[in-house]
This record gives sequence, C-alpha cells and structure tokens, in this order.
Amino acid sequence: MEALRSGREIDKILIAKGTRGGSLIKILGKAKDKGIPIQYVERQKIDEMSESNAHQGIVAIVAAHKYVHFEDIIEGAKKSGEDPLILILDKITDPHNLGSIIRTADAVGADGIIIPKRHSVGLTAVVAKSSAGAIEYVPVAKVSNIAQTIDRIKEKGIWVAGAHMDGEKEHYNTDLRGPLALVIGSEGSGISRLIKEKCDFLVRLPMVGKISSLNASVAAAVLMYEVFRQRENVNS
Amino acid sequence: MEALRSGREIDKILIAKGTRGGSLIKILGKAKDKGIPIQYVERQKIDEMSESNAHQGIVAIVAAHKYVHFEDIIEGAKKSGEDPLILILDKITDPHNLGSIIRTADAVGADGIIIPKRHSVGLTAVVAKSSAGAIEYVPVAKVSNIAQTIDRIKEKGIWVAGAHMDGEKEHYNTDLRGPLALVIGSEGSGISRLIKEKCDFLVRLPMVGKISSLNASVAAAVLMYEVFRQRENVNS
Repeated sequence: MEALRSGREIDKILIAKGTRGGSLIKILGKAKDKGIPIQYVERQKIDEMSESNAHQGIVAIVAAHKYVHFEDIIEGAKKSGEDPLILILDKITDPHNLGSIIRTADAVGADGIIIPKRHSVGLTAVVAKSSAGAIEYVPVAKVSNIAQTIDRIKEKGIWVAGAHMDGEKEHYNTDLRGPLALVIGSEGSGISRLIKEKCDFLVRLPMVGKISSLNASVAAAVLMYEVFRQRENVNS
Repeated sequence: MEALRSGREIDKILIAKGTRGGSLIKILGKAKDKGIPIQYVERQKIDEMSESNAHQGIVAIVAAHKYVHFEDIIEGAKKSGEDPLILILDKITDPHNLGSIIRTADAVGADGIIIPKRHSVGLTAVVAKSSAGAIEYVPVAKVSNIAQTIDRIKEKGIWVAGAHMDGEKEHYNTDLRGPLALVIGSEGSGISRLIKEKCDFLVRLPMVGKISSLNASVAAAVLMYEVFRQRENVNS
C-alpha cells in the first residue's frame, strides 16, 4: 500500500489465491486506478519471491529503473539530429533477452525501446544486470497499447519494420536507412497478427538450419547492426 | 565411479572439501587418467546440486549431449562443399550464451563449435534448453588447448578471425568470405592475449554507446550473420 501511495512505479501486483482482507480491497482499488496489472498465483510462488516471508499474500514487482514517456523517446531522437532508431518489443518475457536488447541498443546508438504494459517483462533487477549497465542510458517506455503506439510512430514519419519470416526480403536486402522503428516479437510466438498488419513492411532473417526461429535478443541485435551497417556504409 | 567406468562423457567432477575415503582415491585416479577436471567446493554447493542429497560428497557433471571430435567438424565442413564456418569460443561460461550461440550457428548453417575443456561451460541441460533444440544438429567439440587447435585449423587452410575491439576494420568492412573460423571471447574479459595473437586478423564490432562490450552471444550472432550476408550477397 505504501508503494502505491508513494507513487513508486509498479510493474505488476501478485496476489496469492485465497488472500482476504480489507487492505487487499484497498490495494485492488488503487491498482485499478493506476492501471497496474494484477495476477493471482499460488501462495508458494509468493513464498519463493519474498525473502522475508512476511508477505501477507501480496507482492508488488517494482521497476529497477524509471520508465520514460513514449514521446520522450521521439523527442530525444529528434534532438540527436540523426535518423531515429526505435525498438518495439511485442511481449518479450525473458528478462535476459530484454537486458541483452537494451545493451545492444546502447551499442548501436538506438534512441529507445518501447514495451507493452501487459504480457512483458519490465525493468527488473535481472534485466538491469543483463543490460550490463546500459539500462542507465537507453530510455525505455511502457505503453498500454502497442498497436496504437505504432500508429502514432507512423504519424511522426517513422517507418515501422517487423521482423517476421513472412518478410519478402532478407534484412540485408531491405533498405533500413531513414527514420525506423523495428518490431521484435516474443520468444514463443513472434509478432502478433494485429501488430504484424500494422507494420509498414516485414523483414526476414534468413535461416538455413533445422530450428525455425532465433532467440529474440539475437534477432534484435542482427537487425540493429544491419541498420547500423547500412547507415554507416552508404556505399556498400 | 559407475559413470567413469561406463565411459560416459563427464565434463567435470566436483568434490566437497573434507571428503575422504578409498573410493574417492579411485575416482581421482580414473578422472586423472581421462583428463577430467576436478574442482573442490563447499559441501553446501554439492547439497544444492544433488536432488536426492545422497551424494557422498562427490558430483559428476555429465554432458546433456555428446561431443564430437574436432576433426569431425572439419570433415563435415569439407563434405558440405561450402566454405567452412567454425566458431571457437574462448571460455564462455554462461550456459544461456552457449545455448544461444548454438541456436544461431544452426540458423546460419555453421559447421560446428569448438570449446575448451577448462574454464568453459559444457553441453549442460541449461545449454540444451537455451539452444531450442539446435544442440541436436550443431556439432560441438571440446579441446584441451584452443591455441593448438587454432594452429591446426590454420594448417587446413581456414582463416581465423578474432572478435576484438583492437580490430582495425569493422566486421562489415572486412572480407569474411572463404573458409573461416570466428573466435569469440568470454563474457568477462574477451579473447585472451595468447589466442588474440594466434588469430590471422581481428574484426571490430563498432559500438557508439556508453557500454564498451556486447553480450558474447550477440557478438557471435552479429558476426555469423555478417558472414552469411557476405557469402549470399556477393555483390552488396
């Protein structure tokens, strides 16, 4: 309740099934007001997460780092004077992948990362560690609706490219210069249908092996570095 | 002892400090004969690793998948009729990174991966899972001495390129076609000095951010896909 009152950024609230009480109702109300996702889990899960075990059946997952507003990423990109490069992550749930993507985004000078409020890992301590410190430098925005955000990105004159095996051309045979947002799908199921249809175009990472998908952070890195290559090496 | 007798591949044997007994001496002798690394650890570590807790102070780490011989990778590459692409991993210790590298190696059609016997994670269950099944298709060889192996790779007419920030040219401005082995350093300290000097040349992954290194599996993936791009797209 104090975390909610203080305005601290909360990614998610977990409640052990069967938990009752007056403060629970107050917490649920405040969480609803703030649009914080609630998830009901087995009590054992809360036991495992809580170091002190004095959890009263409720745990709040707070961010290890502050989020920025989506518009701040666009503004920051404009100020840089270079073509924007933004990452949109459609439901990445593995914290190591998010951390790794933040780290690579720093390396290639990307302007920021957009993640959805639900069905996505937030800026947790594991993400911070996997980012090797890059979490301090790469702005991350959390939005309620990725599809609507894509519409707004397009309105700003930024092309939106989705990484998908239905893409007609390989990433290195696609012009990725100019203002660009790259959409990377989840580890399990890739970009969702709605988001895929929102993209201006799809790019395909060619694969000649037996396994039909790449790790999400690897796909993101290969694409980010291809953008980097094309922008630096105009004549290649 | 049965695992040693049966010829099952053992990555490492952990022994709790203070463990005594006749069978320990026999185990140490057999392990020495086979060149299996021994590590002395606190008893608590063995307790944590052993599910049954009936461990008698000794745990053997066995591979989740069989290793191949280094020569088999070279032979397999020859048979494919295409230019060999081999990965040499200098002391990768994070199982997620090794798994991810195996997965990307499958995607780009690499011929195999070489890891050192010591100071490296082996083909553990976590590696198998992180590889998304690619561990079944990408041959991995474990060698006693990476420097000597590099010499033998060079004798076969394969160029050896190290990923290092001392590299004169960016990866995309370096010709990576032809028979090639890529050397990727450890997460903590990169390629060791001796190995670096053994490389025919170094390539640099450009970085414009605040963090001065990339995740090892990301560096490996960006390089593997650049090799793929250059080989597929001769005119680009």
